[in-house]
Parts: sequence; structure tokens; C-alpha cells
Amino acid sequence: MAETKNADEIFKEFKEHSIAEFFKKNRQMLGYSGKVRSLVTVVHEYVTNSLDASEEAGILPDIGVIVTNVGEEKYKVVEYDNGPGIPKNHIGRALATMLAGTKFHRYMQQRGQQGIGAAGCTLFAQITTGKPIFAKSSTGAGKGYSCNIAVDTVHNKPIITNMVEISEDFKGLRVEGEFADVKYENGEHGIYEYLRRTVLSNPHARIKFIDPEGKEYVFERAIEKQPERPEPVKPHPLGIFVNDLLDFAKASDSRKLSSFLVDAFARVTSNKVNELREIAKGVDFDKDPRALTWPEAEELIKAIKAVKWIAPDATQIKAIGSEQIRIALKNILDPEFMHVVERKPKVFRGGIPFIVEAAVAFGGSAGRKTDKGYEGNILRFANRVPLLFDNSSCAITAATRGVDWKRYNIDIENQPVSVFVNVSSVYIPYSGVGKEAIAQEDEIIDEIKLAVMDAARGVQHYVSGKQKIAGETSRYKMIMRYTKQLAKDLSNITGADQKNVERDIEKLVAKHYPKATGADEDDAASDEGKVGKEADEKKQRSLEDGSEEDD
Amino acid sequence: MAETKNADEIFKEFKEHSIAEFFKKNRQMLGYSGKVRSLVTVVHEYVTNSLDASEEAGILPDIGVIVTNVGEEKYKVVEYDNGPGIPKNHIGRALATMLAGTKFHRYMQQRGQQGIGAAGCTLFAQITTGKPIFAKSSTGAGKGYSCNIAVDTVHNKPIITNMVEISEDFKGLRVEGEFADVKYENGEHGIYEYLRRTVLSNPHARIKFIDPEGKEYVFERAIEKQPERPEPVKPHPLGIFVNDLLDFAKASDSRKLSSFLVDAFARVTSNKVNELREIAKGVDFDKDPRALTWPEAEELIKAIKAVKWIAPDATQIKAIGSEQIRIALKNILDPEFMHVVERKPKVFRGGIPFIVEAAVAFGGSAGRKTDKGYEGNILRFANRVPLLFDNSSCAITAATRGVDWKRYNIDIENQPVSVFVNVSSVYIPYSGVGKEAIAQEDEIIDEIKLAVMDAARGVQHYVSGKQKIAGETSRYKMIMRYTKQLAKDLSNITGADQKNVERDIEKLVAKHYPKATGADEDDAASDEGKVGKEADEKKQRSLEDGSEEDD
Repeated sequence: MAETKNADEIFKEFKEHSIAEFFKKNRQMLGYSGKVRSLVTVVHEYVTNSLDASEEAGILPDIGVIVTNVGEEKYKVVEYDNGPGIPKNHIGRALATMLAGTKFHRYMQQRGQQGIGAAGCTLFAQITTGKPIFAKSSTGAGKGYSCNIAVDTVHNKPIITNMVEISEDFKGLRVEGEFADVKYENGEHGIYEYLRRTVLSNPHARIKFIDPEGKEYVFERAIEKQPERPEPVKPHPLGIFVNDLLDFAKASDSRKLSSFLVDAFARVTSNKVNELREIAKGVDFDKDPRALTWPEAEELIKAIKAVKWIAPDATQIKAIGSEQIRIALKNILDPEFMHVVERKPKVFRGGIPFIVEAAVAFGGSAGRKTDKGYEGNILRFANRVPLLFDNSSCAITAATRGVDWKRYNIDIENQPVSVFVNVSSVYIPYSGVGKEAIAQEDEIIDEIKLAVMDAARGVQHYVSGKQKIAGETSRYKMIMRYTKQLAKDLSNITGADQKNVERDIEKLVAKHYPKATGADEDDAASDEGKVGKEADEKKQRSLEDGSEEDD
Repeated sequence: MAETKNADEIFKEFKEHSIAEFFKKNRQMLGYSGKVRSLVTVVHEYVTNSLDASEEAGILPDIGVIVTNVGEEKYKVVEYDNGPGIPKNHIGRALATMLAGTKFHRYMQQRGQQGIGAAGCTLFAQITTGKPIFAKSSTGAGKGYSCNIAVDTVHNKPIITNMVEISEDFKGLRVEGEFADVKYENGEHGIYEYLRRTVLSNPHARIKFIDPEGKEYVFERAIEKQPERPEPVKPHPLGIFVNDLLDFAKASDSRKLSSFLVDAFARVTSNKVNELREIAKGVDFDKDPRALTWPEAEELIKAIKAVKWIAPDATQIKAIGSEQIRIALKNILDPEFMHVVERKPKVFRGGIPFIVEAAVAFGGSAGRKTDKGYEGNILRFANRVPLLFDNSSCAITAATRGVDWKRYNIDIENQPVSVFVNVSSVYIPYSGVGKEAIAQEDEIIDEIKLAVMDAARGVQHYVSGKQKIAGETSRYKMIMRYTKQLAKDLSNITGADQKNVERDIEKLVAKHYPKATGADEDDAASDEGKVGKEADEKKQRSLEDGSEEDD
């Protein structure tokens, strides 16, 4: 039995650690758990950054991904783009310092928002193969360079080696890394599927992919137009907490609290400030905003909640657009029928605007092909980034499961159906650092559900028509299933001969349903007439299994 | 439309941020999402730390929790213990610096392992009420003090104010904080349930709780004995990766690689080193371990995998113990019948030992009472800490769902059944920073499943006996359900009179199952005979809904 310790002995071991050390020890929190998932995470981080960078620079993205097997469970990943490039003096921190970047404090719709992703890749390469990342970049003529980058995990700082200037004339970024403890796999959770979904939500991107067998795939641009670039926006007063207000006030250049409020937040006019004055009697609106105290800020936030506001400006939230989604779905899934819905902006946590787009596609390459036929699947996106893992904790999964699909005559378990959902916002509340699931905030779930129901309603008539044809014959099958089970149960319990019982029941069915005995059975449609609880339960399981994790 | 930018313009905004800033912006990742959950998270962090501290100091824990409503969605939480206390010079960092603590680099079984929890509480108080935490502590006579502590989020450092020495003679730690944007609720995911489960897995603890209505609950110690304290252990060579080996080597005091290996890792003897020498021909075992290179370390790891090893020493993993679990379950659930299983140590990721304990309890206060009767629930624990949220992504949930409960005649949907699972290890691979779910590592899932199956087998006979009585009659009900549906379908399709069809079928049933027509129906047991897919699916849904999150 161990000796017990007093406080001084215990605290002798007290130490501080860097965020890089933390994620080195807990790499599963960044998405590096499971060999297949880990490799997808690398591609995901690099491609996301390329899309963000080219969007900000107003460039139609041309992205390449090359994955090569270089050893047992060891792969090399090359990713390159035609984006703006990274200035030489920033490359180290951009690719090897966690929580560093241009995106963290911006109130703007972007794919990345944390400044962890790319540094996480460098860390993952380093802890699994001991090798630095190779980067080559140029921000314009005469500014090209290449170097190796590693992480000093103790200090969360980059270690740059072999920096050379290169004369080649190009623009963009190319990163190369070797990663071990990973596996390449095709299928629902592989890199190919990740990229396929990426072009589905980014039809303006062209992505070339070379897989470990050397096969080349090119996802061509479906739309030759750069999407509108979102700009940073001012936060809406209803979306901020007391501490946010204080933070903004402390960083303000305004001379007076009143002008600070107008400058810093959306929808605040001098008229509105006057309304606030009437309510927040204890607050001096002429004081220096940097001297604002917590009780004053609290009073101000209370006043803000008591006043009527115009909804937040959502013009800087750029949804994909229903026409673009239609083109992309046609291009990628080529469904028999689809319905796309773009909802109006909504607000969560009081003042953070977001937009949900949803589509239901039927037939073609929609859904998932299984041994027994088809089943539905959910394609989840946040700010156009495909979410492949952690489906069970995601608001999109929760909302889609919550839909009563029977109402729309859709058998989500057995039909080739894809449900597409994209959530766009200046701030996506991810449930984890790995950014694979949207936290289950009520307002977001409710809005997604409405969007999916809208989309389902749009395909309902088409699907119903298909079902009618198969309905009559499948009902006969269903009845015969009852009779078989009934015969079995009766014979089990009573000892009567099963065949005899079955024959008696069949006679009875034939008497009441003479047409049926000669029914032409249609296998593909045989389950479509299924009713009630069982179908319902199975449906939900299927959705759940639909996008299970690989690890 | 926004102006496009070049790289230099984009990177003008490049900034670094502290981990405290990161979690300030993403507090949902620490468990601060949902008002009810947020308040439970605070209690969870403090109680966990108290249990760890008293265990390390060899003190039987006496813990108090007081929750008071101090405003709209604003609560004060007081938590105190009789533990070793925190030395004055460490209190700030212990309660307000993220990634600081005594636990991070230790290879030892503890409840906490990250050094984030308590600092997260301070941050949460600060961003929701603007108030510091109040702490009062003493590590022994004459060492008492109290102070206020806040977080300097920009630098991830503590801000200590009002430090006063106090003469009062006591030992332990008391923390008090005010938190807003939270809600107190009883029920499945409330603080009362959290503490109830805490004593279930820590029967040596005494916990007093005063709820916001002033009601006092005392969970008395079920066992008057401090559990054996785990000691730090050396890692097993099969559990380390190349980068771990290099990290250990760099920190080593040994003169030679060979002696370093013997010193640093479990189960490495000089004989084993000789075996390794035979395989890793390219490695100089006499060299300074601090000069070990990646290729050498890689060769060494390969050699380690080729050699036979004794399993890791698991004596420093302290499970609760089956007798203790039995006493605790009796104390808290008082079931009619239960079976407790303590499995032998197993290993994941090659060399990290862990122990699974499982129990199935039937009747009494087991399961969850619903409008319709009962349903089963899962009580999840990691190193004795109850896990109340994020059930859907947890290995324990996945494993328990994977059990074919029918095989054990347990109707997990409709019976008062509690499944208890505790996973103990020197390293629990949590899926997120909030530590509410165990990552779904295959080896862990498989082992939990076996443990739960063992436990289920143990209650099977008892449950079967109960069911037999109700079985015969319920089977009749089941058959009548088929016949009713059959009659309805036949009449719908053919237009035949439903009553006529029904009468015909009933006659047929009576002919083959004469006893049944006079059967005495028992409502309570009516679903117990349910078979096949439907029951199976329903069961799984029920488990899933069973421990859903509250937010």
C-alpha cells in the first residue's frame, strides 16, 4: 500500500504544460483516434485551410491531394492549392503553433475558427514518424520559399529548418507530411468520400485526388464562380454576455460609452442608446468605455434585453444557395428527384445568426447501397465543411432523427435517400476541439428539423407515386409474414404440426384475399409497405448506423 | 461584396491566444453547455478534485456541497472537504491556470488527469458573473488562508486578491463561486443524481448536500475504509510509441541506453535488453539515452514488438472491488437481485492496463421509473467518476448496447434493471476535454461487453423465474396481436368484413391452442414475451434515450 502524502509533498510535483503537450497526450480529442479517421483528419485540416485561404483571396480554388503508402500503416500526404500563400515570417506559427492564426477573434463566417488544425497535423506527424512537415509557399513573384517545420511541444513554438528561397514562379501553399498509425480506406469514412462531400458543398472548387494505388480522380468545378466572400460583422447586442461586453469595452478606442456601443455592435443607433439610457439609470453613458465595471455592464445587458431590436444582419452569412446545391447534388448524386430548401436566417443564443440549408435527394446515387438494397444517409456540413465522424452527438443527426419520416411517405431505412444539411454561421458551436459535430443547441436543432421537413415535403409526392405501384404486392408479403409467425407460435405452444397450421391459415388467407395468392412479388419493393412501430424503430437505427465512426 | 486580400493583408491579423481564451470562447467543450449540465459540471470538477486529494493524503473523505439560488439563473456553489489542503503558494495556479497541476505527467490512476477542471470553474464563474472564486484552505495548523482568485485569460495566469491568513484550526479546502446562465434541476442529470452515483462508486466517501430549497441530504459512508491508494507506475514497453520512448530517453538520468530501458519501463530486465540487442542490431545500447535518434527509437520499438513480454503490472490499478460494489448497490439501489463482476486486468493500445467492473441489478430502485412502468438504465463510471453526459459517444454505452439482452431473458426496455460499469486505468482515453465519455477503443469496448455479459448471466436465472409465471399468458396476447392485424389487413385489402375475418381466425387459433382462449391476461407482464427484431430495436432505443443529455 502506498504511503500517504501531505499537501507539500503532493504539490512538489506541480507543473504547467503547454497546449501542444496536452494534445500530444490526448490526440484523440483532435480527431486522431482510429487509423482511418486519423488520415482523413489530416486531409480535412489542410483542405479546409486551402478553401478558407482562397476564399479570402478571391481565388477559385484548385486543390490537389496525393496520398502514398510509405510503410506499414504509414502514409505520406501531399496537399497543395493555388491560394494566396503564407508569408515567410508567418509559416512557422501558422503550421506549428496551436491557437495561433487569423481566425480566432474574428466575428466572421469561416470554415476554420480555432487555429489548431494545421498545427495538429504537424504534431501528429511528429509524434508518429518523428518527421517535420515540409512546406513550400509563395505569396507572389520572388517570394517563394520552402522549409521543414516541427513543433517544440514544451513551448508550443515552431522549429523551422532548411529554409531556402526558391525562384520558381508560383503562388499558393504546398504541404507534405508523413503520418504513421494510420490506414487508408475507401468507403463511407474515407478520404475519397470526404473530398466528394467537399465539392458537394463547395461546387466552385476543383479537387484532384491521387489515391495510394495511383488512381487519379478529378472533381471538376460545377460552378465557375467564386462564392460571395463573407466579411467580418459586428456582433448583435442580443448575442453577447456581460463578459463579452466588458472585453469589447476594454479594447475600444471610443471616448464615450455611448459611441462605443454604436461603433462596436450591430443595430445600435443613437436612438437605441437613448432607449438604453432610460432603462439603465445606474450607468453613465458618457464615461470612458475602458472604465466600464461588471455591475454596469450587467445593468446594460439587462437593458439590452428589455429593448426591441431589429434581427441581426445576416447578409454576411453566405449560405451555399439552393441553386448551387441543386447543381452540386445533380453533379455528384444525380438523383431521380430532389428538393432543396434554403431557410431564412435564424438566431441562436439570443444574437448569433445562422442559416440552415437542407435537401432530400431520392434515387440515383443517393443513399447507401447495401446487400439488401438501399438505406438512407445523412450528409452533414458546417460552413460547407463535411462532418464525417461523431455523428451521434451532432445537432444535425438529432434533428434528422427527430423527423417523422412516415408522414412524408419516406422509408428512410430502405430507400435510396440522402438528407443534406449545411449550417452556416459566424460561429459554429462545435461540441469538441476536433470539430466533427455541432453542439445540440435547441434553437439549432429546431431550425434544422424544420428545414429537413420542408425538404421532405418536397419529395413526398414523387416518392408516394413510386410506392403505390409496389404497395399492393408487398402487402401480400407482409401478411404472409404474419401467418408464418402465427403458425410457428401456435405449433410451438400447442405441439400441433406447424405445416398443418400453416396450411389452415393459408387457406383462410386465400378465402379472404383471393387475388393475393397469385401476387407477383417484387423484391426491391417488398419492404415498402411496412408499417408501424417496427419500421419506425428500424429507421432510426439505420440513420444512426448510417454514419458511424470507423474507430 | 467583400474586397479580396493578398497574403500580407490576411496575415496582418495573425495572433496567438492562450488556452484560457480558447475555452472562454468554446466553453461547451469543457462541459459548460446547457444550463443544467453547466451547474453539474462545476460540482463534478470540485468533488472529483476533493476525492483525488483525500485519496492521495490517505484521508477518508468528508465532502460538502451547498447550492443556493442567488438570482435569475444564477447560483452559488460551495464545496468543501477535509483533504490535505493546497499550499498557499500553489492555490492560484491550482484553481486558475489551465493545464497546470500535479496529475498531467503522472502515469497513475486518478480521477482527474488534465489540470483543466478547477481552472475551468473559475473561468466559468468569471465569464458569467464577473466574480472571482473564493478559496479557503489550510494544509495544517498555522497554515490557513483565504483569498479570491480570478483568471487572467490573456496569459492563462491567476489573479489573487484579498489574501488573508486565518488562525482557525482546520485542514482541507473550501471553494465558493457564483455562476450564471445555469439552472438547478433534479432528475437523471442533476446534482443530486451526480452525488448519488459518486457514493455508489466511492462507498468510502461521505457526502452532504444542501439543495437550493435548503433540503439536506447525507450520503453516509457504506465502507469505513480508505481504498488502497494507487501509486504511479512505470509504463509497459508495449504501450509506448516511438515519440514516447524518445521523450523518456531525453529526460533520463541513466548513463546508458540499456540501463535507461530497465529503469524507465516495467518488465524490462537485463535479459530482455539482451533479447532486444539481438534484434535491434543498428542500435548502440551503450550510448547516452539522451542522444537516441528517431530511427534508433523506431528500430527499438520494432524490436520491443517482436519480443515476448509479461503483461503489464496492474496492481497499481485499484478497482472498486466486487464486495464494495455490492455493498454500495445495496445501499443505494437496494435491488431484489444483483450480480457483480470484477474482471481481470486487460490491456489497450498494446500496453496500457485497465480493469472493468460491471454489475446488473434487478428490482428495488434499479432502472428508471416511467409512466408505463420501468426501463433499464446504464450507470457509467471512469476511475470511479460518474459520467452523466455525452452517453451516445461513450464506449460503455456502445458496449452495453451491443449485448444481446434477450439471451439473458432480460427485457432491458421494460424491466427495472441498472447496468453498472466502472473502467479503471492509469490513462482513460476520454473523447473530449469535458471528460464525459470514454473514446470507443475496440479493446475497451470488447472487454466491457464481456463484463456486462458476465453480470447479465448472473441475474438471468432470477429474472427467468419471474418471467415464466407471466410467460404463458403473455404469449396468448402476442398471438392475438398478430391475428387482429392480420384480420385488419385482409379486410382492408379485400373489402371483406373485418369482424368476419377476425372470427374465422379466432376459431382457427382456438382449434390449435385451446387453452389460450381462456387465458388470464396479466398486463404488467404483457410485453415480456416479445420476440425478435422489434423488441431488439426497441431495447436499443430505450438504452439510448436512457441517458440522454439535458441540453
